[in-house]
Amino acid sequence: MKTLTVDLGERSYPIFIGQDLLASSDLVAPYVKGKQVMIVTNDTIAPLYLEKAKALFADFQVDTVILPDGEKYKDLTHLNLIFDALLSKRHNRTTTLVALGGGVIGDMTGFAAASYQRGVDFIQIPTTLLSQVDSSVGGKTGVNHALGKNMIGAFHQPNCVLIDVNSLNTLPNNELAAGIAEVIKYGLICDLPFFDWLEANMAKLNAKDTEALIYAIETSCANKAKVVAQDEREGGIRAILNLGHTFGHAIETHQGYGNWLHGEAVATGMLMAADLSARLGWIEDSDVARVKAILEAAHLPVTCPQGMTPEKFKELMAVDKKVLDGKLRLVLLSEMGHAITTSDFALDQFEATLNHLTN
Amino acid sequence: MKTLTVDLGERSYPIFIGQDLLASSDLVAPYVKGKQVMIVTNDTIAPLYLEKAKALFADFQVDTVILPDGEKYKDLTHLNLIFDALLSKRHNRTTTLVALGGGVIGDMTGFAAASYQRGVDFIQIPTTLLSQVDSSVGGKTGVNHALGKNMIGAFHQPNCVLIDVNSLNTLPNNELAAGIAEVIKYGLICDLPFFDWLEANMAKLNAKDTEALIYAIETSCANKAKVVAQDEREGGIRAILNLGHTFGHAIETHQGYGNWLHGEAVATGMLMAADLSARLGWIEDSDVARVKAILEAAHLPVTCPQGMTPEKFKELMAVDKKVLDGKLRLVLLSEMGHAITTSDFALDQFEATLNHLTN
Repeated sequence: MKTLTVDLGERSYPIFIGQDLLASSDLVAPYVKGKQVMIVTNDTIAPLYLEKAKALFADFQVDTVILPDGEKYKDLTHLNLIFDALLSKRHNRTTTLVALGGGVIGDMTGFAAASYQRGVDFIQIPTTLLSQVDSSVGGKTGVNHALGKNMIGAFHQPNCVLIDVNSLNTLPNNELAAGIAEVIKYGLICDLPFFDWLEANMAKLNAKDTEALIYAIETSCANKAKVVAQDEREGGIRAILNLGHTFGHAIETHQGYGNWLHGEAVATGMLMAADLSARLGWIEDSDVARVKAILEAAHLPVTCPQGMTPEKFKELMAVDKKVLDGKLRLVLLSEMGHAITTSDFALDQFEATLNHLTN
Repeated sequence: MKTLTVDLGERSYPIFIGQDLLASSDLVAPYVKGKQVMIVTNDTIAPLYLEKAKALFADFQVDTVILPDGEKYKDLTHLNLIFDALLSKRHNRTTTLVALGGGVIGDMTGFAAASYQRGVDFIQIPTTLLSQVDSSVGGKTGVNHALGKNMIGAFHQPNCVLIDVNSLNTLPNNELAAGIAEVIKYGLICDLPFFDWLEANMAKLNAKDTEALIYAIETSCANKAKVVAQDEREGGIRAILNLGHTFGHAIETHQGYGNWLHGEAVATGMLMAADLSARLGWIEDSDVARVKAILEAAHLPVTCPQGMTPEKFKELMAVDKKVLDGKLRLVLLSEMGHAITTSDFALDQFEATLNHLTN
């Protein structure tokens, strides 16, 4: 087992990464401060892992909420189901919420924990690769609004994160690929040697090789933790974690949440960011080809969805969080393995990328 | 004009208290960091003060949301109307929300600001006495849930608070009285000389004497600020601000939100707390009589609503936030002018108070 500490002063917490950790109650139980636990999961994960998760908290009052599975349920209405359960089971301010599932469950449970009685504890047990390498570090929580993704939320750090790589055995291949998209992102934004390693080991990751997965998860979390520790509330450098996300969010919004997986949209978005970076002369055309090749090796999409025109893109990007006072800012690659946030590009270069990668 | 600073380190902010401040744009405009302002108000306050408030922000993009007036609209559904407006008007992360109204508007706007894009700025312009002496200090924000009051929320401090006592000229008498209940509270919990002053000056407050109001508001805010500065997130001493509130919330829940004013319920709750304190021998029966007399002088209720039995009380108090791990904790008076949080009372003493003050 690997233990990684996310260093955020008094809000620091450990991430445990290994096999069979869902059978190790001595790892997580010490992170429950009160006597009550509310496990939040969905109807896909519940039949697979809920009993195991409940067994982790044998000495506590354990209640559960089972939400419908899917990004389209990540809204205030379904968030309220968590509050319904907490109140009807009389959970008090010392309760601990446990997120058992992917990023949607993690974001919703985290925001419920941030908001219930103005803030209670929570523990993350991410069961998808995407949530293991992304939402388990950084404390971003929230729900979607009809007019924008993740527009309602809070920063709220978990007490600890338990990553059992065995839970990936039940993960569908397209969701594995979506997680690998975020793994590739860490290589692109701040860790070129890791990007090289990923190019060499993509077949192992596709085949769910345990050692390769543990290494990829640990390295991804360590990279994210390093960035977040510098900028917990996203005032500056943390924004580089959004490589591909502004383009990607536009794709997700256009398709309706959940029709493209988040990681798939981010994959195409990263290629668009790489394409624009090359147009600015910051990276080579051969680098863009590397980005495209590794995404294809991970079975990720490298062109935008049918019918998504450049005009649609521009319209949807205008309401994105990364727009500050009307000026579009994007995360681009100043070189391979190094991302920056910039608005230093001409509109026609931006449009050239849209024209090149839409149909 | 008086300026009071709430001392919370990097989250410190000023409270401006005086006459005609709604005509002083030079006071609040410097506290807007971006270019966008969203004023949130209700349909009672909008015709009275919205144009004045908009004029304070003449140099900014100003949009408005007008909610229906009333505690019964303080829920997630109506909170979402604020997000609808922010997103449809494309407000970004540098926007500033402005709460123009009473405690409901302040709590909802503050929580919207805490949650919109995981946190944006906000300014309070409280227009009721209750919100001026209560929610303008402390950063508590949130909405109600069908199963409990203020169960969903966040701690989020405003950039500044503007209290124009002239706005009390349009306040109905029962709402003035409800505000005075909280003013009396500060005397009871931590400022006996202020309680003495209130006994001597209640007629002036009832008559909306400007100087008396400014003194009462300033002293109340200063007392609250002193307590909050010691305990921003309510881990300990801050709980004394809830004198009368656990009883009061039970009354409000029983009646349905908004049928008794919050301050009215707190008034009766404070008398119940005083009654129990006297049964414990901590204060004299004559002190309880003083509490009852000052509440009556302020035209506040001193008996529980018809039909609210001791059994109903106990049932409703069990889901209150002040219950820690199943043990009922209450704020009581260890002496006149000094409150403590305690579970150090016998059930039969608690029941004697319920029996004495219910019908």
